[in-house]
Amino acid sequence: MTAHEPLRGVIPPIITPLTPAGDVDVTSLQRLVNFEVGAGVHAIFVLGSSGEGPYLTEDQQRITLQTVTATVAKRIPVLAGVSDIGTRRTLHNAAIAQEYPIDALVSTSAFYGTVGWNEIDRHFRAIAASTDLPLYAYDIPVFTGVKIPAELTVELAKDGVIAGVKDTSGEEDGFRYIIENTRHIEGFSVLTGSDITGDAAMLQGAHGMIVGVANIDPHGFVRLYDAAMKGDWDTARTEQERLHALRLITKIASPRIGGLSATLGAFKAAQVLRGIIDHDGLQPPLLTLDDAERAQVKAVLDSHGLGPIKA
Amino acid sequence: MTAHEPLRGVIPPIITPLTPAGDVDVTSLQRLVNFEVGAGVHAIFVLGSSGEGPYLTEDQQRITLQTVTATVAKRIPVLAGVSDIGTRRTLHNAAIAQEYPIDALVSTSAFYGTVGWNEIDRHFRAIAASTDLPLYAYDIPVFTGVKIPAELTVELAKDGVIAGVKDTSGEEDGFRYIIENTRHIEGFSVLTGSDITGDAAMLQGAHGMIVGVANIDPHGFVRLYDAAMKGDWDTARTEQERLHALRLITKIASPRIGGLSATLGAFKAAQVLRGIIDHDGLQPPLLTLDDAERAQVKAVLDSHGLGPIKA
Amino acid sequence: MTAHEPLRGVIPPIITPLTPAGDVDVTSLQRLVNFEVGAGVHAIFVLGSSGEGPYLTEDQQRITLQTVTATVAKRIPVLAGVSDIGTRRTLHNAAIAQEYPIDALVSTSAFYGTVGWNEIDRHFRAIAASTDLPLYAYDIPVFTGVKIPAELTVELAKDGVIAGVKDTSGEEDGFRYIIENTRHIEGFSVLTGSDITGDAAMLQGAHGMIVGVANIDPHGFVRLYDAAMKGDWDTARTEQERLHALRLITKIASPRIGGLSATLGAFKAAQVLRGIIDHDGLQPPLLTLDDAERAQVKAVLDSHGLGPIKA
Amino acid sequence: MTAHEPLRGVIPPIITPLTPAGDVDVTSLQRLVNFEVGAGVHAIFVLGSSGEGPYLTEDQQRITLQTVTATVAKRIPVLAGVSDIGTRRTLHNAAIAQEYPIDALVSTSAFYGTVGWNEIDRHFRAIAASTDLPLYAYDIPVFTGVKIPAELTVELAKDGVIAGVKDTSGEEDGFRYIIENTRHIEGFSVLTGSDITGDAAMLQGAHGMIVGVANIDPHGFVRLYDAAMKGDWDTARTEQERLHALRLITKIASPRIGGLSATLGAFKAAQVLRGIIDHDGLQPPLLTLDDAERAQVKAVLDSHGLGPIKA
Repeated sequence: MTAHEPLRGVIPPIITPLTPAGDVDVTSLQRLVNFEVGAGVHAIFVLGSSGEGPYLTEDQQRITLQTVTATVAKRIPVLAGVSDIGTRRTLHNAAIAQEYPIDALVSTSAFYGTVGWNEIDRHFRAIAASTDLPLYAYDIPVFTGVKIPAELTVELAKDGVIAGVKDTSGEEDGFRYIIENTRHIEGFSVLTGSDITGDAAMLQGAHGMIVGVANIDPHGFVRLYDAAMKGDWDTARTEQERLHALRLITKIASPRIGGLSATLGAFKAAQVLRGIIDHDGLQPPLLTLDDAERAQVKAVLDSHGLGPIKA
Repeated sequence: MTAHEPLRGVIPPIITPLTPAGDVDVTSLQRLVNFEVGAGVHAIFVLGSSGEGPYLTEDQQRITLQTVTATVAKRIPVLAGVSDIGTRRTLHNAAIAQEYPIDALVSTSAFYGTVGWNEIDRHFRAIAASTDLPLYAYDIPVFTGVKIPAELTVELAKDGVIAGVKDTSGEEDGFRYIIENTRHIEGFSVLTGSDITGDAAMLQGAHGMIVGVANIDPHGFVRLYDAAMKGDWDTARTEQERLHALRLITKIASPRIGGLSATLGAFKAAQVLRGIIDHDGLQPPLLTLDDAERAQVKAVLDSHGLGPIKA
Repeated sequence: MTAHEPLRGVIPPIITPLTPAGDVDVTSLQRLVNFEVGAGVHAIFVLGSSGEGPYLTEDQQRITLQTVTATVAKRIPVLAGVSDIGTRRTLHNAAIAQEYPIDALVSTSAFYGTVGWNEIDRHFRAIAASTDLPLYAYDIPVFTGVKIPAELTVELAKDGVIAGVKDTSGEEDGFRYIIENTRHIEGFSVLTGSDITGDAAMLQGAHGMIVGVANIDPHGFVRLYDAAMKGDWDTARTEQERLHALRLITKIASPRIGGLSATLGAFKAAQVLRGIIDHDGLQPPLLTLDDAERAQVKAVLDSHGLGPIKA
Repeated sequence: MTAHEPLRGVIPPIITPLTPAGDVDVTSLQRLVNFEVGAGVHAIFVLGSSGEGPYLTEDQQRITLQTVTATVAKRIPVLAGVSDIGTRRTLHNAAIAQEYPIDALVSTSAFYGTVGWNEIDRHFRAIAASTDLPLYAYDIPVFTGVKIPAELTVELAKDGVIAGVKDTSGEEDGFRYIIENTRHIEGFSVLTGSDITGDAAMLQGAHGMIVGVANIDPHGFVRLYDAAMKGDWDTARTEQERLHALRLITKIASPRIGGLSATLGAFKAAQVLRGIIDHDGLQPPLLTLDDAERAQVKAVLDSHGLGPIKA
């Protein structure tokens, strides 16, 4: 990663495996990281929403950062999520993260309470002022309660506050606006958070994808990305459609449990089935899939030929 | 507070005064607490949303708990907010709070990410299992992104998990349902979070009010509460209408800044004007009122005869 | 109704009974109207949401207006709903309604498409300019997609455009604001659309209730209203709580069918069970309750002692 | 149009020009239609949201249908919007429309009141049962208050109830799901309602675009469509980005006036400036742009080289 080249490619927001006792499962995490790097992903995003980052204790965050950076060992960049309720907590997370050899920070808006343009602006400027690392804005209004206005994203980009954005807002208007208005900003990176429209995002000019389903099938997303970069849109579309079908595992447990539990529970259940991690527990109060739901996940994996990985 | 008597009365969710350097302003906090106790409020709620609780660092939380409990000195109960992103962080906050002589815990649902009935249920049961203190559920969907279902509140009440609820949802249907279905649960307390309809809440059967404007004019809310308890609804309504007019200070800075900044900024600006606290700064990224807005706050205070308090 | 006295009391928004063939069931409608008038309600609201007004054809609207006005025969005022998509259609409905001896018009905002303050303002002024009858604004954002701003309601009240408001928004803040700011406008009437908080609305200063459940149990609402007018709030609350319990029939068929179907289907099913109307069909695409759901309605009615009415 | 070939291409949802007196401006409408057909669009959609269809009186609907079908004179298909509050009104509109030589019907869900899956299903089946023409579902939840579930759209497609969908929901997940699950249904057409992501929609497999900005610059959309059909995605993207910039005229009057007024007011103002229609008035209560806003529209048109059309 340099200031001159935008971050590109497939970036899995990796889950954080836990032991039955609720500790970070270091061995599983190492296996997951090596699996992802081996699949050819272009960077790793740790402590994001898929990583239950905001739910983890400081100790859990540290062992996660320690394990991931040591395992990646600079083969590819590591982005660390530092999202938290307000600026001070976020800065605290950022300081911890920077004790480890990470390559960039990722943060949502401040959340809890209704914040507006000016507070979001202040939040990102404060984080950026505290670090020499590139900062990526993470726009996920369904979790934070507030959309980062596309116009503010562009302004922060022009001012060099942020080096890119992960857009998980689902708002196509703003996404397009950002792409069109940051294209000439050197090194700025627009990354979609959508598992469903990665091909369309790439066509529009996105630089890559931070996509949860890459926890299960990173090879598929790498094929999608490579095809898109070659302009082979038929291949990209075919791969995207398959990955969309695979993503339906995230709906299996819904609405028995909430959306975050159903999604992360399915990711972890699938990873256990593939032998990538050992246990599928989540940080409380998030809830895991039950055995019937796990069996449904297995059926989907089987239909995609996604069996146990090679050790 | 006993297990047999519901918590009743006016409970200010006190703000957390900060110095210009951003530390907790202990002297101001002592003055604020003594002002509130002197006004006859029935309990103090510290580290709630008005207290910027979820925005504070652990050090700030500790000094706040220390100062408030020492200043209250058991004259009235102290409720401590422990709301945080997930269960582990909430339990961590609860453990810290219980190092101080507090009388009850208050927590929202887990937030960040979409959680459902089962996760909320699990969250409250985990907190309750960790403490001997009464636990109050705090329902504020506009901040957490999720409404605690009224049916779940009743279920948690019947199971003895929670001792009461602060309902700031603004959903009259659920509020009424809770009142009607918890009336015969010994010691259960229904508290409205509305500054606007306290008289109506009391008429319906609520036990009290946790109301931000009591940071500015606790005497008014005590008069309202006393009138309601005597069945003097004309006086209650007149007082409530005046307090509603006073509350318009929370709209002055909106939409220049977000709702939480505009509200807490106005509370603190008014408290500075009344000599209750010394500075009106907020935890970043929250933003304060500007001088023109402060002047508008002063005009409103003057129209209500709310001048400097006696030392 | 005069320009000097606000409209007060219990005003059932009566349903429109249909024959199995889908025509207005005139005999049932006459029986319903006589039942309501006999119960002591203070006015009748026809062609509202409960009356499926916006779903009816012009022919159905005419026979309904004809039947109701002839049956009421000036014993009490009749308010006619004229809500429609835009101003011209609303004016068309208003012209039709005024061919019958009605006493007032009721209209929502224009709907379909996103309209703002200025369009809503223009809409109500155009309707008022077209008629000598009092005009009531009907605020039901869950159906129209737009909240009539409370400040606009007050402005229209001060300008004499509207003679009152039916507030079904569920937003307690705006409701209180309207009450407080229209109290001194001669003849202006604030009517709650809530079946659940009628006592609280009356305490705050509302003039009456336009409440769907009065289709089933008008006697209960009249008792509630009378108690409130006498300041007998214990009786009012007890009656309101019973009516809230009765209203749970509107949840029986949800979510099998949508909210409007579940509510109106339950009203009509209950009226058939009470012998007030003969059939419980709804205007398509609205759906009726099934037999199991009707049995649940009957059980609730029985528990309230609501049996067949006397012929 | 045949049952065997899906509807494809650029389909302008044409506005309905009005005279200053509020009548349909027949001469302007003829000029508009000839302009669109001359630009090479593939069909005309009349009486949609851009056409203020639901706001028009029956007389206005008739003269519009008469004028458009006569002017098009079967050169390309004409789709007629019949959306209305409930099924009976929609069937009434459909019967009127079919008195004119149209080629297909387009309808939203029923609206006003909360309807669910079963009511929407019943609504579309009733319309389809009443006609031999192809029926297109129009999904625009921001106007109707309800999203047509993607799974229901697919079910209606499989059952032959609908021949296609105009998706203006902005929900990329459902849009993709529909494309993937209707691909093998003979003659079924997926049309995006987005002016912003037409290229991405085409890449994913959409058959065409029903896009309001084609009222102003149909040539641009035809170029975009042709490029996409040839797989020339760079040209498609470049054209789409230009059209996105052009579409910013729809934001000029917002939030002075509501979204529908700001959008349609801008379309009509631009058409007057281009000499396509003579007046830019809208059906009340919708509001037109003011002169300063019209000047801003002109500046945007000029920057795109969109001057007066040839007579």
